[in-house]
Amino acid sequence: MKKKVIIIGGGFAGLAAAQRLSNQKNISVTLIDRRNHHLFQPLLYQVAMAGLNPSDISVPLRKLFSRSKNITTLMAEIETIDLEQNKILMDEQWKPYDYLIVACGSKHFYFGKNEWEEVAPGLKTIEQATEIRRRVLLAFELAEKETDEEQKKALLTFVIIGGGPTGIELAGSIAEMTRYTLYKDYKKIDLKKTRVVLVEAGNRILKAFPEKLSQKAKKDLQNLGVEIILGTRASNLTSKGIQIGDQTLKSYTLIWAAGVKPAKITEKLNSPLLPDGRVKVTQHLTLPKNDSVFVLGDQAACFNKTQNDYLPGLAPVAIQQGKYAARTILNDLKGKNRKPFCYVDKGMMATIGRSKAVVQTGKLQFTGLFAWVTWVVVHIAYLVRFKNRVFVILQWAWSYFKFGSGARLIVHKTWKFYSGEKIPISKKD
Amino acid sequence: MKKKVIIIGGGFAGLAAAQRLSNQKNISVTLIDRRNHHLFQPLLYQVAMAGLNPSDISVPLRKLFSRSKNITTLMAEIETIDLEQNKILMDEQWKPYDYLIVACGSKHFYFGKNEWEEVAPGLKTIEQATEIRRRVLLAFELAEKETDEEQKKALLTFVIIGGGPTGIELAGSIAEMTRYTLYKDYKKIDLKKTRVVLVEAGNRILKAFPEKLSQKAKKDLQNLGVEIILGTRASNLTSKGIQIGDQTLKSYTLIWAAGVKPAKITEKLNSPLLPDGRVKVTQHLTLPKNDSVFVLGDQAACFNKTQNDYLPGLAPVAIQQGKYAARTILNDLKGKNRKPFCYVDKGMMATIGRSKAVVQTGKLQFTGLFAWVTWVVVHIAYLVRFKNRVFVILQWAWSYFKFGSGARLIVHKTWKFYSGEKIPISKKD
Repeated sequence: MKKKVIIIGGGFAGLAAAQRLSNQKNISVTLIDRRNHHLFQPLLYQVAMAGLNPSDISVPLRKLFSRSKNITTLMAEIETIDLEQNKILMDEQWKPYDYLIVACGSKHFYFGKNEWEEVAPGLKTIEQATEIRRRVLLAFELAEKETDEEQKKALLTFVIIGGGPTGIELAGSIAEMTRYTLYKDYKKIDLKKTRVVLVEAGNRILKAFPEKLSQKAKKDLQNLGVEIILGTRASNLTSKGIQIGDQTLKSYTLIWAAGVKPAKITEKLNSPLLPDGRVKVTQHLTLPKNDSVFVLGDQAACFNKTQNDYLPGLAPVAIQQGKYAARTILNDLKGKNRKPFCYVDKGMMATIGRSKAVVQTGKLQFTGLFAWVTWVVVHIAYLVRFKNRVFVILQWAWSYFKFGSGARLIVHKTWKFYSGEKIPISKKD
Repeated sequence: MKKKVIIIGGGFAGLAAAQRLSNQKNISVTLIDRRNHHLFQPLLYQVAMAGLNPSDISVPLRKLFSRSKNITTLMAEIETIDLEQNKILMDEQWKPYDYLIVACGSKHFYFGKNEWEEVAPGLKTIEQATEIRRRVLLAFELAEKETDEEQKKALLTFVIIGGGPTGIELAGSIAEMTRYTLYKDYKKIDLKKTRVVLVEAGNRILKAFPEKLSQKAKKDLQNLGVEIILGTRASNLTSKGIQIGDQTLKSYTLIWAAGVKPAKITEKLNSPLLPDGRVKVTQHLTLPKNDSVFVLGDQAACFNKTQNDYLPGLAPVAIQQGKYAARTILNDLKGKNRKPFCYVDKGMMATIGRSKAVVQTGKLQFTGLFAWVTWVVVHIAYLVRFKNRVFVILQWAWSYFKFGSGARLIVHKTWKFYSGEKIPISKKD
């Protein structure tokens, strides 16, 4: 009798686990995701900024496992988990499991202000990326035909909330795109005057990075023309602007890169959570009361003794956890004892723009062109499919040498920035 | 004083006119489109069938004219045209013109049954293409987890209404994709059993083509497994199926490729229309009562003496008309007399699938591999931007040699096929 493994979520963790279990005898795997594709989220900001196509950074899960005889891929939503009887409910069918791997990732968290979501979309899915792209490009289009100077200024003001890697990558790309790529195409506005404002509540950007790299990133962003506001909370986000400390800024394009929380399924696990919603897992990445249920990636609060803190929600953490869970299951079947999960920290990196990045690996820290090349190589290497690698390299090469922007499509024909609200264009006869 | 030319619509006709007028002294051009991009519609079915990315076949209008000093590109909708005072209303601003070129194309026409639009989308815009892609791919995903055989059959039945080029290209690609590309990825269903039904009210497909080519295309499609129903009208389209003659077919995926009608702006021209809604134009492509207003492309009913019929809505017609209108304006400025528009018919082509196409040019007719290569070369050549050409060639080469499919993303996370209606998945414990 084969052991049944159910993996919920085809992100970095779930994918790594499934790949490790692929074509293993004695194991049958069901990989379930609400989407039909694995998404390479670290490059999602480039889809938002019209540099890459959605399909360049995603790959159908089904395609990845077409040669894995023991893996069934299903696109479905999980309704409930029965931890007592080891089964999950999906499409009104119960599916039994011997091992359950829960790895559904996270979504944006607006600190309880859910109404901000509509005015300041986050960047977790392809739809959100194309929505951000639409808003940014539409703002330029509206500014081009705007006759009122005040209104034009508001249209050309972009505010990014959150100074983590996603926030700085977005801010850097908007600044770069307006200053080096798009400005030539607009004849009535000077895109070089576009205001890009990055707001961070903490006292420095990239706070997970060493201080020196934060400073370097800050300087690089400022050289690109990004205004950085530190130690100040954004509040009162509306469809017309934002309050930053006691300053009110008129802007139609707000982007949220501040907080995330685990996908809701954690609540169904009936297990202690951290205040941020993550499930406390054992050193074997399982629920304290149920060692056949693994929780991985952004949903897991895994305590790391070296750092004396819980591991952050990063792709490398998720990938290592996925591999660990798969290895543990295989060891179980061989009757071996479980070993605790041990995270190997290979470092962190973020890019600010063309030829600019910051990299920390071990005690090594570097910036500038070499850091950027490292960033490029690592991101290409981690892309899942050979075809995606080729097409991303081609798009990047094109943009690099031509200073052009890739996919500048406004899809979803609507003049509204937010549901129900149309940006007013000033009247003039 | 420069002459003001306003072009409404950045399709084939409008684009050709603007390109011809680019950097001409004494003329200032405003190119207005509701979208920010020109779309190469002949390849749109490949976006719908997950072969190409939206950005592969579209290009920002603004980008095309960034070096044209006399052309202003605006993304806007026209509210009204004042033919007496030569001005248009846009965003509550009046814009005067000396010449107006109206070339807004066409949209799908459901013979008065507008409720069919939701259950059987047409293929004119990128959003429609990605919506069709979503429905087709989602049907496969739902079939994979469906336990009821009847329901599974309905999910794997695809009906295309209309046997023109778009209809046969869609039918051919669905059949090919299921039989050669995707079937490996599904483990519980046999995609080779997918039913693709093409319904045509007339007595042959591709009725604008010579009889012999119609027959060849029909045979090619049938070899791919497409069922062709001729001389029969589709009726009673619902979210659960379709009536074809007196046969009722259960299907969740209907695609409309039957009728088109000109964009609504034609009604504002206060000029005689054909029953199909097209504006009757003079031999100079202008309104009978106003020789400074040109109507081009799908919106124009231009009588062709050679064929003793009105010219069809094809890209080559639109392109030639666009160039003609621009030339006429330039000649006007030089004080030359206007010459009548003369359409040079270079022929027609349609592709059925891998290495299969039909081509007619002059008295020459050919089919098979050579026709397909011709089709490929002509379509690449007509793509507007060098970058698009390169990336389309690369995608095609990849698909050709790997039998892979490009952009198999289901975007817009919803389980609903149609608003409010979710496909029922059979219950089973």
